[in-house]
Amino acid sequence: MAAAEPPVRYGILGCANIARKMWRAILLSGNSTVVAVGSRSLAKAEAFAKENGFPGSARAYGSYDAVIDDPDVDAVYIPLPTSLHRRWAALAAEKKKHVLLEKPVALNVAELDEILAACRVNGVQYMDATMWMHHPRTAAIAAALSDRCRFGQLKAVHIIYSHNCGPDFLKNDIRVKPDLDALGALGDAGWYCIRAILWAYDYNLPTTVVALPNTEFNEAGVILSCGASLQYPDNKMTTFYCSFLANLTMEVNFLGTDGYIRFNDFVIPFEEKVTHFYEHANTRFGELATSIEPLPTKHVVRSDLPQEVLMVKEFSNLVQKIDRGGEKSEKKWEIISRKTQLVMDAVKTSIDKGFVAVEVEE
Amino acid sequence: MAAAEPPVRYGILGCANIARKMWRAILLSGNSTVVAVGSRSLAKAEAFAKENGFPGSARAYGSYDAVIDDPDVDAVYIPLPTSLHRRWAALAAEKKKHVLLEKPVALNVAELDEILAACRVNGVQYMDATMWMHHPRTAAIAAALSDRCRFGQLKAVHIIYSHNCGPDFLKNDIRVKPDLDALGALGDAGWYCIRAILWAYDYNLPTTVVALPNTEFNEAGVILSCGASLQYPDNKMTTFYCSFLANLTMEVNFLGTDGYIRFNDFVIPFEEKVTHFYEHANTRFGELATSIEPLPTKHVVRSDLPQEVLMVKEFSNLVQKIDRGGEKSEKKWEIISRKTQLVMDAVKTSIDKGFVAVEVEE
Repeated sequence: MAAAEPPVRYGILGCANIARKMWRAILLSGNSTVVAVGSRSLAKAEAFAKENGFPGSARAYGSYDAVIDDPDVDAVYIPLPTSLHRRWAALAAEKKKHVLLEKPVALNVAELDEILAACRVNGVQYMDATMWMHHPRTAAIAAALSDRCRFGQLKAVHIIYSHNCGPDFLKNDIRVKPDLDALGALGDAGWYCIRAILWAYDYNLPTTVVALPNTEFNEAGVILSCGASLQYPDNKMTTFYCSFLANLTMEVNFLGTDGYIRFNDFVIPFEEKVTHFYEHANTRFGELATSIEPLPTKHVVRSDLPQEVLMVKEFSNLVQKIDRGGEKSEKKWEIISRKTQLVMDAVKTSIDKGFVAVEVEE
Repeated sequence: MAAAEPPVRYGILGCANIARKMWRAILLSGNSTVVAVGSRSLAKAEAFAKENGFPGSARAYGSYDAVIDDPDVDAVYIPLPTSLHRRWAALAAEKKKHVLLEKPVALNVAELDEILAACRVNGVQYMDATMWMHHPRTAAIAAALSDRCRFGQLKAVHIIYSHNCGPDFLKNDIRVKPDLDALGALGDAGWYCIRAILWAYDYNLPTTVVALPNTEFNEAGVILSCGASLQYPDNKMTTFYCSFLANLTMEVNFLGTDGYIRFNDFVIPFEEKVTHFYEHANTRFGELATSIEPLPTKHVVRSDLPQEVLMVKEFSNLVQKIDRGGEKSEKKWEIISRKTQLVMDAVKTSIDKGFVAVEVEE
């Protein structure tokens, strides 16, 4: 779209911490602006707008309804607790607002299907807010994974996303409350792990999923840490671990027949503008097996814009194509969101049933 | 022991490739020498001795018996196929030879117990040839893991040891022959993974083990790749993957409540004299969760002597204490060897029974 085109106007539902980051991203995107923020408390919405320096014309509302009813809002960003997603994402779609939905997108695939149906019927764009997918490093790694000579066939994947949330979080955060974010660490951290696995497998679904014993729960039964193994028909080994109880760690290990790719900050890069990944290719023993050759390669991928800004830019671009270009919505995002949810549901079912193998069905 | 003490005299059973590396290690150790090598073929033993420049006085024998009968041999290094370990390690011990045994040490714990009993009854030292344990980096990482402030409590471990062995190995190597090394990749590569896990847990045994689906076998039923999850009573998450079918990769991920330690060459360092490991400590989100702080620390650990030389040095030192100092043998090595074997047996049983949970019993 032409640069002179008017920006996509966002309304934000809720004043979660992550909304501060996204507010900045919207303003930095170049094709988007913030026009409204809503909270159940008007005072909270006003304080949030003021604190974050929203453009003077942005409105603070004392309800979510007011945001989605505002005719100046083109798109909503929804960082509400997961249990509220189905209602507010579907309502926003019905009001013809495009939906950028924070993850985990829903408590289960049935809820997500309601959201996706509402978006489809109303012709609005849907996207889950999985920021790392929009970083140019992700595209660079995709290219490295598809190198037949230096990586070969994918054989094994292991992903860790953990975050030692501390006693205050574990007592008070919405992400450990069964009525707000019943998926706990599986939803908040496991979402990223599952998405990374699906991404590496070109979004092919595993046939079965087995949660690993040693899941940890809080007193209300919300998952605080868990792991799982995903089975693909061609004997690839796939495992992940997610936790609210371990040091903030974001490890990706992709092992191929002829190479190995790893990076240590997949969800949020250590530094905004300069990122890395490491590639081992055609690794072999040196003379007498007293060394290993060649040394891994450190790849540097620079990005002028943070990944969340690139995400907003892409979402707004799709919105503009629909609202002003008359195009249809991009279906990729609902497809991969649904697959991520299906695997997450299967892991949850496996945990609930005592770590049995659960089939993943589309 | 005093430096002037005469060296421990080794006999080597078999002419495996690894014996070339160990021959060099024995000669570099400063307290050891090679006096004999035996093969089923005298010509092969003679060629091996000549090719490797054994000291002029070293004898080449056309049988293993001749090596263990040689009164000038104090200790034997046994790199034979695993199925021959029970017989030759026990016989060597009966002839009062100290036993440095290549891994995997036995096909199962019953066989290992015969070896260990023979060593104990005959008062000889036993050690498995797990070289990485003797590298000073291993001690440095142990110190980092025990740092309560920078690492905290161990929460999760993931280990990979894979080696893309290529078509010739997969067709001809002893490690894929059911009558020679029936444990396949589990024995050859999984041994290291299991040892690393036990090492990290202060040699506490898991209560149960579950092999993960997607084990790969060759036509003769020998394991070419597999993975497993080990359960500890305090909800630690422990997984490993070992393979003959993926790029040579040696990854260790140790995740703690307050830190994360990783290194990428745990079995054999990339470089003989300069090694690294990486430590993430008290990692947290930066402002607006747009970065991660602090950056990981790259630790450098130098070693003048290769790890296999340090292993020989330590083994010979223990031998000298027994043979010349009248001390008893060091029991640590048989204890941790047996625990490693117990876990390996449990993984094998889990695979054989269709990936069921198997209790680990001492």
